[in-house]
Amino acid sequence: MDVRMTAQKAKTASRRIAVATTEQKNSVLVKMAELLKKKKKELVNANRKDREAGRKSGLSQNLLNRLVFDGKRIESRISSLLKIIDLPDPVGQVGELERRPNGLMVGRMRVPLGVILMIYEARPHVTVNAGAFALKSGNGIILKGGKEAVRCNAFLGNLWAEALSYAGLPEDAVQCISASHEEVTELLRLPEYIDLVIPRGGKGLIKSVVEQSIIPVIKHFEGICHVYVDDDADMSKARRIVLNSKLLMPEVCNAAETMLISEKRAGDLPKIIRALSKEGVEIRGCAKTRKISRSVKAATEEDWRTEYLDKVISVKVVDGLGEAIDHINTYGSGHTDTVVTENYTHANRFLREVDSGVVLVNASTMFDDGEELGMGAEIGISTDKLHARGPMGLKELTTYKFIVMGEDHIKEA
Amino acid sequence: MDVRMTAQKAKTASRRIAVATTEQKNSVLVKMAELLKKKKKELVNANRKDREAGRKSGLSQNLLNRLVFDGKRIESRISSLLKIIDLPDPVGQVGELERRPNGLMVGRMRVPLGVILMIYEARPHVTVNAGAFALKSGNGIILKGGKEAVRCNAFLGNLWAEALSYAGLPEDAVQCISASHEEVTELLRLPEYIDLVIPRGGKGLIKSVVEQSIIPVIKHFEGICHVYVDDDADMSKARRIVLNSKLLMPEVCNAAETMLISEKRAGDLPKIIRALSKEGVEIRGCAKTRKISRSVKAATEEDWRTEYLDKVISVKVVDGLGEAIDHINTYGSGHTDTVVTENYTHANRFLREVDSGVVLVNASTMFDDGEELGMGAEIGISTDKLHARGPMGLKELTTYKFIVMGEDHIKEA
Repeated sequence: MDVRMTAQKAKTASRRIAVATTEQKNSVLVKMAELLKKKKKELVNANRKDREAGRKSGLSQNLLNRLVFDGKRIESRISSLLKIIDLPDPVGQVGELERRPNGLMVGRMRVPLGVILMIYEARPHVTVNAGAFALKSGNGIILKGGKEAVRCNAFLGNLWAEALSYAGLPEDAVQCISASHEEVTELLRLPEYIDLVIPRGGKGLIKSVVEQSIIPVIKHFEGICHVYVDDDADMSKARRIVLNSKLLMPEVCNAAETMLISEKRAGDLPKIIRALSKEGVEIRGCAKTRKISRSVKAATEEDWRTEYLDKVISVKVVDGLGEAIDHINTYGSGHTDTVVTENYTHANRFLREVDSGVVLVNASTMFDDGEELGMGAEIGISTDKLHARGPMGLKELTTYKFIVMGEDHIKEA
Repeated sequence: MDVRMTAQKAKTASRRIAVATTEQKNSVLVKMAELLKKKKKELVNANRKDREAGRKSGLSQNLLNRLVFDGKRIESRISSLLKIIDLPDPVGQVGELERRPNGLMVGRMRVPLGVILMIYEARPHVTVNAGAFALKSGNGIILKGGKEAVRCNAFLGNLWAEALSYAGLPEDAVQCISASHEEVTELLRLPEYIDLVIPRGGKGLIKSVVEQSIIPVIKHFEGICHVYVDDDADMSKARRIVLNSKLLMPEVCNAAETMLISEKRAGDLPKIIRALSKEGVEIRGCAKTRKISRSVKAATEEDWRTEYLDKVISVKVVDGLGEAIDHINTYGSGHTDTVVTENYTHANRFLREVDSGVVLVNASTMFDDGEELGMGAEIGISTDKLHARGPMGLKELTTYKFIVMGEDHIKEA
């Protein structure tokens, strides 16, 4: 496979997508939704073959689950496409326009990044979702899925090509490829054609992409998320928020992994621990926690750095707000952290000083979600600080340029 | 030298700077300005020794010029510090605050990046300027200057330490280091302590930083800037803008390197060429240009990709706007490009479609400058697309986080 050619074609196509109207881009997404509906049976078949092959080759149950692309999941992709169609197009929006003292008009115009390379495992829904996000934000995209989903992704790639050509836009704007390690490495060294790399998957995949890429990378690393129960917490809110943050979906990145509680509230700890235990959550506590609730297992240093993604929570009693913030900034992953408090000053300090993508007060960590936060939908959550942080929507797949409107403006020496 | 320790200390110090008040940060800058004034003689001496050593070791005249830190340049640093003191502090500003249908208040708060690593050659003024930008935007910074400026930079490092400790802030927030290649490589692999790398210098330096870094890099590569003279150009504006873009400071990155002119305006070419020649500019033209002005040297393919930084300009006759935009997007460096036109539709299309950090209409490329564009001052110009593009001010050294204010918000299944 000539990956340089793939990248070059993506770049050429991206220039056409960058200047396409919102109507043109939406018509691709409408067509794609129609095609998903029409070809559902064939898609489900392709996916079935992928899964059979996966089972034979000994794929883990976890990966096999994520590989599923059945009727229900296809329907959910269709409704997600319709949602993205309704989102405002960020391209061409101008902000911060001002008239300078010398009469120059200066503003910042939102423009697409160019070409995005997405590298991911299993989930075929990414092939639909990331393609739609890239197109709507005016970008080309190269979708490098895992070999375990090769049939389903190839099928989806053909649907993208059909939808693009239906709308009169170049098919190369969305390319679904399978590529060897060496070919991926080559792609990661083509900044002249590719503007951004987004890896999604296990730590190993992400580390290797970061190691090799000379193109900027935005990654989602892990979610070690905290709930801090402050001195002045309303304890019934605290219980609800801890339970919801841990239990609504323990397997997702913004589920809570650690509860911190102020020493002044330690007396209320047994009640929360009982409520968690009742729901089948395993508790791993610090020494102080275990003095209060003797049945609790001991947490090790490693626990404070662990993303369980399961019905397990680590619990630590802290001096108060200052130690809680220090703990989060030291052991957390900069993802999502919430404080439960009725204290105005503590709430503000937590919001200011916790160095994470999403910081909340009196709300479950489960609200870290592009739709809940007003972005309509999200392509992912960034745990990086550069360019995009927290949930990423359409705007986060664009950049800006300065536009300067003069009237015969010459600079003096 | 234990560079890991350097980076770790920078990270710890950066947490203090991140929560410092604007007053505290400004008082460091005021003190630094005072110290520069008070210690001017010693600084000039340190710089003289650096330059003597440089001459002996055979440093190029170009580098020797950039190494100069005399009374005049120190004065200019002092006034630049005073300017930065007057700029608004971006940290803590909240934008896009909205009330969601479920009652959650959601906004984006500007916060510092953390620790910046600046790698640069010669110019000691960067040691003052970058330090001031980092501090004012709430960041820690590691300043890795070249060995040719080692005495002057060490001296400035001591002044920073004195200014910081005077304001009650940790000295490690600004560290001036000299480091071997191996030590720099080690720094570039410490994303746990360093959040952003900014290399400034020759292409070799920048390429090697990009190759080695697993930390995000924002770079200034090169400025291959264009002036396009459109069909409907006012030719007296065109002449003034071409001359100003090429000649005000031919050695800087936003000086024009190529003039494109519409075929319909080719008759006016000799006049512009004569004006440029009269100012001592060497012209390298395409075949059509040379048919019109026979004395012009032939441009090679290489010329369209060359940043002369000198009194040389390449000239190409194009079909019209479309070819001009294609040429710029193909051969340009995404830096600064301007169109001269009276045509409303052409102006808008040029602004929309030219994929560069700064795009202008009827204005000299020399206006690509942080101060001219309203940012007060700049730490550099980014030719990258991610995070910051074009001139970078204080805001570009920050990131955002989502802040979410709830009232017992629990997410439904």
